[in-house]
Amino acid sequence: VGYSPCRISHLLIEESTGNQLVFLREINGDRSFAIGIGPLEALAIQRALQGEAFPRPLTHDFCMAMLGAFSITLVEVRIVRLEHDTFFAEVDLTGPGGRRVTIDCRPSDALALMVRGSEVPLRVNDDILAALG
Amino acid sequence: VGYSPCRISHLLIEESTGNQLVFLREINGDRSFAIGIGPLEALAIQRALQGEAFPRPLTHDFCMAMLGAFSITLVEVRIVRLEHDTFFAEVDLTGPGGRRVTIDCRPSDALALMVRGSEVPLRVNDDILAALG
Repeated sequence: VGYSPCRISHLLIEESTGNQLVFLREINGDRSFAIGIGPLEALAIQRALQGEAFPRPLTHDFCMAMLGAFSITLVEVRIVRLEHDTFFAEVDLTGPGGRRVTIDCRPSDALALMVRGSEVPLRVNDDILAALG
Repeated sequence: VGYSPCRISHLLIEESTGNQLVFLREINGDRSFAIGIGPLEALAIQRALQGEAFPRPLTHDFCMAMLGAFSITLVEVRIVRLEHDTFFAEVDLTGPGGRRVTIDCRPSDALALMVRGSEVPLRVNDDILAALG
């Protein structure tokens, strides 16, 4: 399977429906598509993108603090497939010994962690870009 | 500072206001108090308490999967203080080498992780129990 590097282009909150969409765009091209996410996940992504401070750690801040305390680094986020209108994501983490693991997750969680990391690459399965982009 | 072992006694959703409350109760006594939490955090706690399966991992399931992949165990949750109507919590984690770290967090995140762990003890600062219990 091929993957293409992407980035978050913007978040959209549809006032009429209350739906939250995060738009991902190809870096070396102009295909883009949207993933529907929950309201708190949208807030978690938006807060980090805008660098807004929050008095107490949000859930993904807490996640990053736990990983950081054990020298675990988020090294890549992938959107791996779309199945019955549900997007599946994965994150790759490396531990202090260089051990690399892959964890299955929802795109919203992967992206909310990604925007809290340091220039974490995002890659999207080309089948998704071909179908939706 | 003294701490007393507690447990989650129940969750309450106030239909009229939409507020979510998690009630904590002393194990060796009958003092109890409530902490207001967000709707998604309430769902995250309720799902795990009821053992409900969800098609995709919720955020705290994802957290536990990341910790587990690196043999990190949640060993204790504490409600440490109440300041201007905000409760502060901490979780203790141990890594594979036995290293123990404490991470600052919101009670809702601490409790949502706790109910996904294996008999994780919960302790509450006695000052909170004395004031509210």
